[in-house]
This record gives sequence, C-alpha cells and structure tokens, in this order.
Amino acid sequence: MSDPLDQSPLYYRDAGVDIEAAEAALDEIKKLAKSTFTPSVEAELGLFGGLFNLAVAGRPDDLLVASTDGVGTKVKLALEAGRHEGVGEDLVNHCVNDILVQGALPLFFMDYFATGQLDPFVLLGVVKGLAKACREAGCALLGGETAEMPGVYHDEDYDLAGTIVGWVPRNRLLDGSRVRPGDVLLGLASAGLHTNGFSLARKVFFERHNFKLDDFFPELGTTLADSLLTRHVSYLPALKPWLDETGLHAMAHITGGGIPGNLVRVLPKDCTALVTPSVWTVPPIFAAIQRLGNVERAEMYKVFNMGVGMILILDPTVLERVRADLTARGTTCWELGRVIEGKREVLLV
Amino acid sequence: MSDPLDQSPLYYRDAGVDIEAAEAALDEIKKLAKSTFTPSVEAELGLFGGLFNLAVAGRPDDLLVASTDGVGTKVKLALEAGRHEGVGEDLVNHCVNDILVQGALPLFFMDYFATGQLDPFVLLGVVKGLAKACREAGCALLGGETAEMPGVYHDEDYDLAGTIVGWVPRNRLLDGSRVRPGDVLLGLASAGLHTNGFSLARKVFFERHNFKLDDFFPELGTTLADSLLTRHVSYLPALKPWLDETGLHAMAHITGGGIPGNLVRVLPKDCTALVTPSVWTVPPIFAAIQRLGNVERAEMYKVFNMGVGMILILDPTVLERVRADLTARGTTCWELGRVIEGKREVLLV
Repeated sequence: MSDPLDQSPLYYRDAGVDIEAAEAALDEIKKLAKSTFTPSVEAELGLFGGLFNLAVAGRPDDLLVASTDGVGTKVKLALEAGRHEGVGEDLVNHCVNDILVQGALPLFFMDYFATGQLDPFVLLGVVKGLAKACREAGCALLGGETAEMPGVYHDEDYDLAGTIVGWVPRNRLLDGSRVRPGDVLLGLASAGLHTNGFSLARKVFFERHNFKLDDFFPELGTTLADSLLTRHVSYLPALKPWLDETGLHAMAHITGGGIPGNLVRVLPKDCTALVTPSVWTVPPIFAAIQRLGNVERAEMYKVFNMGVGMILILDPTVLERVRADLTARGTTCWELGRVIEGKREVLLV
Repeated sequence: MSDPLDQSPLYYRDAGVDIEAAEAALDEIKKLAKSTFTPSVEAELGLFGGLFNLAVAGRPDDLLVASTDGVGTKVKLALEAGRHEGVGEDLVNHCVNDILVQGALPLFFMDYFATGQLDPFVLLGVVKGLAKACREAGCALLGGETAEMPGVYHDEDYDLAGTIVGWVPRNRLLDGSRVRPGDVLLGLASAGLHTNGFSLARKVFFERHNFKLDDFFPELGTTLADSLLTRHVSYLPALKPWLDETGLHAMAHITGGGIPGNLVRVLPKDCTALVTPSVWTVPPIFAAIQRLGNVERAEMYKVFNMGVGMILILDPTVLERVRADLTARGTTCWELGRVIEGKREVLLV
C-alpha cells in the first residue's frame, strides 16, 4: 500500500528479507557442506569464493568440465509435498550425470537457492539432499548463494539450480567422435521422470484432472507423490568402473528432449541411431500421463525419458561384458538398438 | 481449469513451455558465447558440459576459486524498464569482483536464466550483457541453463544467477591473513546500488511512495530508472595491475551486508577496522532512499554499499602509490580509515 505520509522507519526485513533467519540456518548449512569436503578443498581459506586445489586435476592434459542445471518445476511438487531433500539429490545427480557422459568425474558443486521468503526448514532440507548426493559422488559442496527475492517468488516458492565442475583426462574424453556404424546402444533404467517434463505432468494430473499428490494409484503401486518425486538416479557408481574402457564410445544423459533430443548430441554426422522402444518396459507413470493427457506417443518420447535415463554407445565386442557387470551390480539395462550409417538422427522403430 | 472430460491431446507447449522459442534464440546465444571464448575453451568439443583446459592454471600450486551469485530483485526493475543487458553485466561484474578480492582472475562463467514464459528478446538482452562483461573480463561464457518454469515464475518474470570459476597462484592468494594493525583502508567508488538492497529501494520508491521508474529526480540529475539500473562496477581493470603487490593485504567486495558485513570477513581475530563515513561523498540515491523511507543510518550502512564498492587493506607504505595510480586511471578512491588492534569488528566512527 502506498502511503507517503507513513513516516515509520523502514527496515530491510519490512521489504520481506529476513537476514537473521538466513543466518540462523547458516551454521547448520556450513556443517553439511563440510561433510562433503574432499582433500582438494582449502576449507579454512574459504572467504568470498570457495577454494579448490588442482592436486587431482592439475596435469596439462586434464580438462575441466562444467555444467549448470536446475530441477525445473519438480520444486513445485516438492513444496506441495513438503519434501525437500529429494530435489537437492535430484539436482546434484542430474549434474553428475551431465558431466559423466563426457567421461568426467565431479570435483565440486555450487548451488543457487532463491525464494520469496526464506524458510530455514526448507533450505536445510534442500541442503541436506545436496550434501548427501555430493558425498555419494565424492564431490565437494564448495559454495553457493541463498537469495530472498520477494516479488519475484511467491512467499514460500523457491527455485534451485546448481553448477558442477569436474575433470577428465583428455585421452578419456567422450565427445561422440568414437561412435561408428555397428555400435550398439545399451540403455540404463531411469527411476521415473527424474527432473524433466514436470510442467506437463502437473498439467495432466492436477489441472486437467483433479488428482491430489497423496492419491494412491493402483497402477503405480504408490501415491502420485511417491512416484513423481522419485530421485533422479546418479549413474556414477554404475559407470565409474567403465570410464577407462576404450569400447565405451559415447554416453547420452536422457533429460529434456528425451531419447531423440539427447542421443543425437553424441552422433557423428554420418551416423543414425535406431532405437526400438518395444525392448524395454515403459514404467507405468508414463503410461498414466499419456492416457490421462491423451498425449501423442512422439510427444511423450520428446518430453520424457520413458524409462531410460542413460544410453551407452558401445563397441559390440564389449556389450556383453558391460551388460553383465551392470546387471550383476544391480542396474537394469537393455540393448536398445544400434548405430547405422545415416545422417545424424535418432529413429524410434 | 480442471476438465477430465477434455480429451484434446496435450502438448508440452500447452503446459507453458515453448521449446521452439527457446531454440530460436539459441543460435544467437551461441554466437554471443563464442565471442567470449579464450584459448582455453575447447569449443568444438562442448557437448553436455563446457570444456576448459588448464593451460593457464594447471600448476600444482594454482587454486580454483568459485563463486555463485544472483542479481536479486534488480531483475524486477530491469523487467519494468525493459532493459536487460544491464543485469547481465551486473551479474558477471559482481562475480568477477567476488573472486578478485581473493586475488583471482576469472577463467569461465556459467549462467542460469529461469522464467515463466521465455521471451527470446529478453533472454538475448541478458546474454548480450553477460557476453559483453565476460569479454571485458577475459572470461569465457562457457555454458548455462535456460529454464521455462510456468507456475514458479509469473509469465514474464525471470531470475538470473551465475557461477564464476577463476584461479589464483597460492602465493598470491588474499585471505585476510596479511592484515595487521596500522594498515590503511582505501575505498573505491561504487556507481550506485550495484546489485544489493533493491527490495528495500523498491519498497521505498514504489510501495511507500508512488514514484514511477521514469520519474526525473532533480537531486539525482536522472530518472529513477537510470539511477537504480546503473551497472555494477567491475574492479578488475583497476586492480589487476596490483595483484602482485605484497603491500596489498586484503580486499573486500561491498555487497549485501554493506561495509560492516563485508569488511569484517577479511579481518584477523585481533584486528578492528575504523571507517570514517565523513571522508567520502555518499551518492544522492542513498540519501533519497534514507529520507523517503525514514531508514535509520545504521540500517542504510548494513543494506547498501553507500558509495563504496570495494575496500583495499593496504600497507601504509604503498597507499600513496596505489591511490595515485587508481586516480590517474580514472577510479575515484578515498582513504576510509585504518586497522587497529581489536576484536574483529568494523566500527563506523
């Protein structure tokens, strides 16, 4: 309300920014970040920026690989469900996978959390998830920024984004150049939507239909919340042992754009990938979205991962060894198809 | 509107996400990013993550320095004024300064742009500003993420954040440990609010009072828009020649928390900084905020930079040389006070 006659002193907190609430959460957050520190973090020196030494990646032929991502509108569901650790894990795992496909191992992670009015409980939940996933990935949560932005975000709304920096020795870099006709595609199961397609999923379940997050879906065997908020899988534990395998020609992380939009990114100009959807079981959450939203099949494959979160392009001579190893260690995978001569496209056949 | 009987096929764009609009802007954005590439960028290889070689920073005693930041609610004013390049420059310059205070030079930058509905014109404006400031800093705009998040952001609203990664040789690292009683404080002029305190400024001008962005303020000599949207100064050009000077004991970038909140971060436990506000001229924009919002003086110094964007802590023997050089090259600076024995606090006297 505009009232130029109001002479009461204004404080920053009147503008909706509560610095004290943020500082109260800070000690706990520092502890969580510290739980992720690797020997390369120069902890005591961390001032305006986080400090990281190059002990593990300081050779002239080491490359840094950096990727920035968010978790999209999955944050809206996390907020409605009151579960925040999961999106923290989602974000880190998404970023870990994004550099893993180039053969890189994570070094450190920086997060950005912005909200209308800081709820320390929510922030702590998110950071717990970030720290947990960072520890699992051997990645330091080196720093970040927490912003209170009344007027940009509704009170309790928030957004979460992050940047990962990793490294890869040049001779292990995967960039698609090793891919050739005759290679085979091995798909690794996703756990659900991961972090893509939530705007459409929310529209289908909660706008066109009147479902609630805690509605139990017999076909899913869970509530909508449990199904939609399933964690984004990190493929680092499964694939780390294979990064030095020369028969591993390329990898694609299946995110926004689906299999066609992501697999094409690692195909040489003269190669086409043939993918046969009938060889794997599409998880029921995708079937539910398709049916309830009357979504076309092609649109489904463009928006969602459809059950495949990672695709390896392999020399056929290593396929069985890789498949057997992944399966033995608990990762479901399928031979999805193969690479033929073509014109840099992905065909679902 | 919920209508389970509606059987029309849903597309991703019905959920408010227009992939095509985003892709249309992508070519132009790639060109802008490329204009910033330094020899360390492995451009042709950039796939899922940006690739950066360690040619300039691969010695064992080089440290990476990383910092993440946003531009806060300054984005709201940029949106209302329809000027977006400025906040792109603001963000990069803010990040450049944040690692500069540790003695670090920028290597690369990653941006995060999230909005309710993508307006390619707005995104391009922002990226132009990011690219311009990156080029000026010798910093590669290596990658980023553009997210359309209907339901989190209002249609045209957006948020902008970024992560910078730089490097510093360990022997040049500034961490406050060199600071000692007898040191002097040299303050470098800011150009205005930079990127902090906008929630309070907006409340004062546009909520308590009914001013418009294009109102001309005689005391400012400009419109509110011109004054509030002035760029965040990068202190890299001014200070780069001095990074090897051993008489430069520490630096503090004056952002949220003001002089007291930031200068204290580089003080040893047994030092106190005495700052004398009367030695510099507080720009009229701060006086206007204080008067119109009846904001207490202490609150002003806690929220805003009050005209000082960077503080150097110097050995007194180098003060005159540094001041003369900065002044000769066009940077306004003032001797703000000094460091005495104390208990890690900043006193405005």
